[in-house]
Amino acid sequence: MDLFYVEHISNKKLSVSESKHCLTALRKKVNQKILLTEGKGITYSAIIESIQNGQVIYTNIKSIYTYLRKPKIHIAIAPTKNKARFEWFLEKATEIGVDIISPLICQYSERNKINETRAKKILISAMKQSKNPILPTLNSPISFEEMMKNPPKNCYIAHCQNRKKIPFKKLLVNLKNPHTISLFIGPEGDFSEKELNFAEKIGFVSITLGEQRLRTETAGIVGCNMINLLL
Amino acid sequence: MDLFYVEHISNKKLSVSESKHCLTALRKKVNQKILLTEGKGITYSAIIESIQNGQVIYTNIKSIYTYLRKPKIHIAIAPTKNKARFEWFLEKATEIGVDIISPLICQYSERNKINETRAKKILISAMKQSKNPILPTLNSPISFEEMMKNPPKNCYIAHCQNRKKIPFKKLLVNLKNPHTISLFIGPEGDFSEKELNFAEKIGFVSITLGEQRLRTETAGIVGCNMINLLL
Repeated sequence: MDLFYVEHISNKKLSVSESKHCLTALRKKVNQKILLTEGKGITYSAIIESIQNGQVIYTNIKSIYTYLRKPKIHIAIAPTKNKARFEWFLEKATEIGVDIISPLICQYSERNKINETRAKKILISAMKQSKNPILPTLNSPISFEEMMKNPPKNCYIAHCQNRKKIPFKKLLVNLKNPHTISLFIGPEGDFSEKELNFAEKIGFVSITLGEQRLRTETAGIVGCNMINLLL
Repeated sequence: MDLFYVEHISNKKLSVSESKHCLTALRKKVNQKILLTEGKGITYSAIIESIQNGQVIYTNIKSIYTYLRKPKIHIAIAPTKNKARFEWFLEKATEIGVDIISPLICQYSERNKINETRAKKILISAMKQSKNPILPTLNSPISFEEMMKNPPKNCYIAHCQNRKKIPFKKLLVNLKNPHTISLFIGPEGDFSEKELNFAEKIGFVSITLGEQRLRTETAGIVGCNMINLLL
C-alpha cells in the first residue's frame, strides 16, 4: 500500500499535492485505507473520510509501525558541480537510510548553493517510494569553518589525500553504540590540507571507504550504506 | 596520475578518443609518464614516445599494480524504464567494483534494450575516473528464461514479494570463498511469481537487502556494495 507524507498527523488532512497523488494518480476513494507518515519513524494507517476542495480528509488514525534507526546517521557532503549528481545522492541516501544531511561548503567547492525546495521534494518522494518512514533533516548549506565552530560528535572525514587513513569498515565494526555518527565528504577537488589539518586537530578521524577513488556522490552513498550495514 | 584505457597494452598506441583526452584535456607531452590499463586488474606505467596522426605512441611499459578482486561479482539486473537510472547503476557499480553485468529481460520489464555502445563508454569512463583497473564485462540483454537454461553458480535473487527471504548480509558473512557470486535484481514491477518459483526451484536463494523498498538501480548498487564489503 502506498505511503503519504503529512507534516502533522493530527491535521487530519493531506496537502494539496499529496491529495492529488492520492486521488488522481492512485485513484483512492472515500472509505479506503491509506498509510501516512510524518517522516519521524512512525507509519500510521487511516481511512479517507471525505474529500473537501480536492483535499483528502482522513480519520481513524492508528500507529502501525515504528522504525527507529540507531545510531542517527549524519552525512555532511559538498554539493557537486553537477546538480543532478547531488540530487541523486539525496534520493539514494534517503532510500538507504539517513537522518541528517548537511550540504558543506569547502575551500575547493564548485557549488555553494542548492535548491532547498526541490531537494526537500526529492527527499519526500524517495521516503514515500521506499516506504522508509524517516524523512531526513536537510540543513541549509554551511561552510566548513562554520561547521568546525560547533562540530558534531563521532566525526569521520573521507578524503583521497596521502595521509594516514583508517578503513571505515574497521572502525564501524568496533564502534560501541554511538548515538550519532557524522561522515564528512568533500567536493570534487577534495578537502584542502588546511581543512584536513584542522579537522584532525579537533578529533575527526581520517578514513578511507575502499581502494577505489569514488566520486563525491558515490562516496556519500557508499558511506551511508556502510553505516546502515555495519552498525 | 590519470589512467587511460587500452584494449591491448601490446598495441603501444592509445585510441583516437583516449589520445584526445590525453593530449587535449590533460595536455600530456612526449616523454611524460602515463598510466594504462586493459581493464583486467593490472595498471601499467608507460612513457609517451611520440604522437603520430594525433595518436599517442607509448613505450617502456611496466606493470605497477595488480588488483584481482575475489570473488567475481556478477549483477544480473533489469534495465529501468528511465534510461538515466540504468546508466547511473552502470557508473556507480563500476566505481564500487563489479566484474560482470547482465541486463536481464523479465516478464514485467518496461525496457528490453540498452544502448550498448553508450553503456560501454560509461563503464570505461567510470573505470578510469575511479582508478579501478577492472572494466566490467557487459553482456547483451538476455531474457530471464534464456538465463535460466544455463544459470551461473551461487545465485541470489532480490525481490519484494511476500515469501521467505534471507537477509543478504547474513548469507554473505557465512559464505566460504565462492569463485563467483551472482545477484539478480528485477524490474520496477518486480519478478513475477512464476519467475521466482522457477528460480527457487533450481537453487536460487531469495534474499532481502534490508527493510526498505529500494528502486531497481539502488538495489543493484546496494547489493554490489554489500558483496564488496562483506566478502
